[in-house]
Amino acid sequence: MRAEIVSVGTELLLGQIVDSNAALAGEVFAECGVVHTNRQTVGDNLPRLVEALRLALSRSDIVLTIGGLGPTEDDITRTGIADALGLELVEDPEVARSLRAFFEGRGLPWVDSQLQQARRPAGSTVVPNPNGTAPGLICPKGDKTVLALPGPRGEFRPMVTGPVREWLLTANPGQTIRSVVLRLVGIGESVVEDRLRDLMHGTDPTVAPYAKTGEVHIRVSAQAATEAEAFARIAPVREEIQSRLGHNVYGEGDSPLEAVLLQELRQRGQTLAVAESCTGGGLGYRLTSIAGLSDVFLGGFLTYSNEAKTRLLGVPKDLIEAHGAVSPECAEAMAEGCRERLDADYALSVTGIAGPGGGSEEKPVGLVYTGLAGPGGARSARNLFRGGRAVVRERAVQAALVNLWEALKESS
Amino acid sequence: MRAEIVSVGTELLLGQIVDSNAALAGEVFAECGVVHTNRQTVGDNLPRLVEALRLALSRSDIVLTIGGLGPTEDDITRTGIADALGLELVEDPEVARSLRAFFEGRGLPWVDSQLQQARRPAGSTVVPNPNGTAPGLICPKGDKTVLALPGPRGEFRPMVTGPVREWLLTANPGQTIRSVVLRLVGIGESVVEDRLRDLMHGTDPTVAPYAKTGEVHIRVSAQAATEAEAFARIAPVREEIQSRLGHNVYGEGDSPLEAVLLQELRQRGQTLAVAESCTGGGLGYRLTSIAGLSDVFLGGFLTYSNEAKTRLLGVPKDLIEAHGAVSPECAEAMAEGCRERLDADYALSVTGIAGPGGGSEEKPVGLVYTGLAGPGGARSARNLFRGGRAVVRERAVQAALVNLWEALKESS
Repeated sequence: MRAEIVSVGTELLLGQIVDSNAALAGEVFAECGVVHTNRQTVGDNLPRLVEALRLALSRSDIVLTIGGLGPTEDDITRTGIADALGLELVEDPEVARSLRAFFEGRGLPWVDSQLQQARRPAGSTVVPNPNGTAPGLICPKGDKTVLALPGPRGEFRPMVTGPVREWLLTANPGQTIRSVVLRLVGIGESVVEDRLRDLMHGTDPTVAPYAKTGEVHIRVSAQAATEAEAFARIAPVREEIQSRLGHNVYGEGDSPLEAVLLQELRQRGQTLAVAESCTGGGLGYRLTSIAGLSDVFLGGFLTYSNEAKTRLLGVPKDLIEAHGAVSPECAEAMAEGCRERLDADYALSVTGIAGPGGGSEEKPVGLVYTGLAGPGGARSARNLFRGGRAVVRERAVQAALVNLWEALKESS
Repeated sequence: MRAEIVSVGTELLLGQIVDSNAALAGEVFAECGVVHTNRQTVGDNLPRLVEALRLALSRSDIVLTIGGLGPTEDDITRTGIADALGLELVEDPEVARSLRAFFEGRGLPWVDSQLQQARRPAGSTVVPNPNGTAPGLICPKGDKTVLALPGPRGEFRPMVTGPVREWLLTANPGQTIRSVVLRLVGIGESVVEDRLRDLMHGTDPTVAPYAKTGEVHIRVSAQAATEAEAFARIAPVREEIQSRLGHNVYGEGDSPLEAVLLQELRQRGQTLAVAESCTGGGLGYRLTSIAGLSDVFLGGFLTYSNEAKTRLLGVPKDLIEAHGAVSPECAEAMAEGCRERLDADYALSVTGIAGPGGGSEEKPVGLVYTGLAGPGGARSARNLFRGGRAVVRERAVQAALVNLWEALKESS
């Protein structure tokens, strides 16, 4: 069973809105085992909408339209669907009644254009919308079906994850796609691919690596009649990947690196602090995105200026003069000073040149040292990142976390 | 001139990624006066990509592909473009050289598949990618052009807003849409709308407010044959808005609030430090997104635990016991302790309950105090934010900056 999305709205094309609804619908299709091969986006333009719908109907069994169901003149989706399917629009008396009741109940002035939302292609059924006035539609014609849902996020989300998901599971029985995601650090996407080439050529389960900032995620997906069967097919492939790349796998599923690290520290009864220069708080911000871990993450220091490094962390002035603030020596001294002052088991530090200015031949923009002080002493790692200031800083935060991950792995 | 986007990537269809790149490209098209009528999204599937490209080329002058330019086997965009345009792929020796140099310079293991990124359709030119290994492409054929850009956000953004925007302006001369953006804080979108309703009904220039996190941006746009003409039409409308809402306007254009604040402090020869609890570094991270201001921003303290507030900032233990860590008293004490310890002119503090846990009836999730210590003493502001942990923290950072903005405005 093949599905396609047609998103409707000039605001999408103008970039005023990011189409997160379509992404959510994609997730629902995948969960229901519906193959989703294409998406089209058109503005509030009837001929172009009809053209897109006809193309979608020519190649897909299910077409989901998103948006354009409201009461205003540029809400053209109902008409477009009726045109594309060659059906008449009829007024649904039930919907018309509940629209009037809605306006009365809230003491809102009634406008006749609201009734547009009660119209539906003949033969279609209505999907209730508990969070708005425009209901959704299920419009069958022959062996094709057009599903139509309203665009506002708060209305779309419960409808697509509720009744539409149910409808898809019924329309496409005995088919589900399940995935497992392995999360890796310390290895590049092309190396991962090199090592998994044979598995990636398979189609059941499918194996696909994705490059993230300083990470690679490997998704293993299987299609099967039941969830249990899908996971049973995934299991041996997951094991094979673990045996080849397990050394770089830090976790599975949705848990980001910072969550895995803080959880590991909590289990060990250990604490963490940070001292940041070029990242200016980005490392602490990422760690504290995880809630309820103030017993593990104690706090830290933003020592952006050299004076602050000396004043707050006790980094000797002559160390900075001799080696520079961007040096392994300074990174280690920052981590040690931080660990001591907050009485933490581990302290991470970051010092680097995020750019765009401040680079030299010897110490170019993108040079970042991460330091780690722990029960076993201090150490540092050198990194050279490409990219603008934001990218270098994001990668520096990631590198500091990887530094800690490696230390914890060694000491486990 | 009509343009169309073809986004490439199975992860887009599966809903693992939201297509924010396409939205950004839409904004750039609008700015360049290019009509943008359709978008298509396909997975990593060559026949479907070629089908989408052929359709796009049949109705649009410019086709922009996003993604699929990397070194792995599922990066099919180069081949797809060559197929759709009927061109050969050739290896670009310059790109091949710089790829090898990149790997050597970083001591990374070379994999031959990297060379795929040096291939381009005959007759195309290369768009440099300073933040990654895959360059972009400009592929002309007859009166059509395919533009190809890589998908990672940090690579895509500077390329589409830089060289591709320039190329579009040159390709589509004599038509430009220019905009001025006024940036406001301390006022809600609906109040702005209320005060500008008459201007918003106009169509030349157009006036549109956008709600951002803790800010409202008002975009005034005019379409004209020349840039000068467009700005001349914008000028009187901008003045009118200034006269109505000038009290809340903190800046114009692309400069975010943190840049305006740091610049103002530099002009005054004053310095800033921060003390963060629930934001855990987010305020410092945002301030240090602005480069070259280490003479103004000195550093700060992440006092996530209560003990750290006492230990690092000297917040009295009994103050925390009496009022709680989330209180105006604690926010002010944090700011004062921070100001003193870093010898700064101003110190900002944030303390709050970001959630999801930790709230009570008296102090619910979303309650945030921002403190400010300056030459004129200390003060604090109470905020109650709705939303999840990430939203509350982002708004808390913004609220701290607005606190400083108001203080600087008063003292100017």
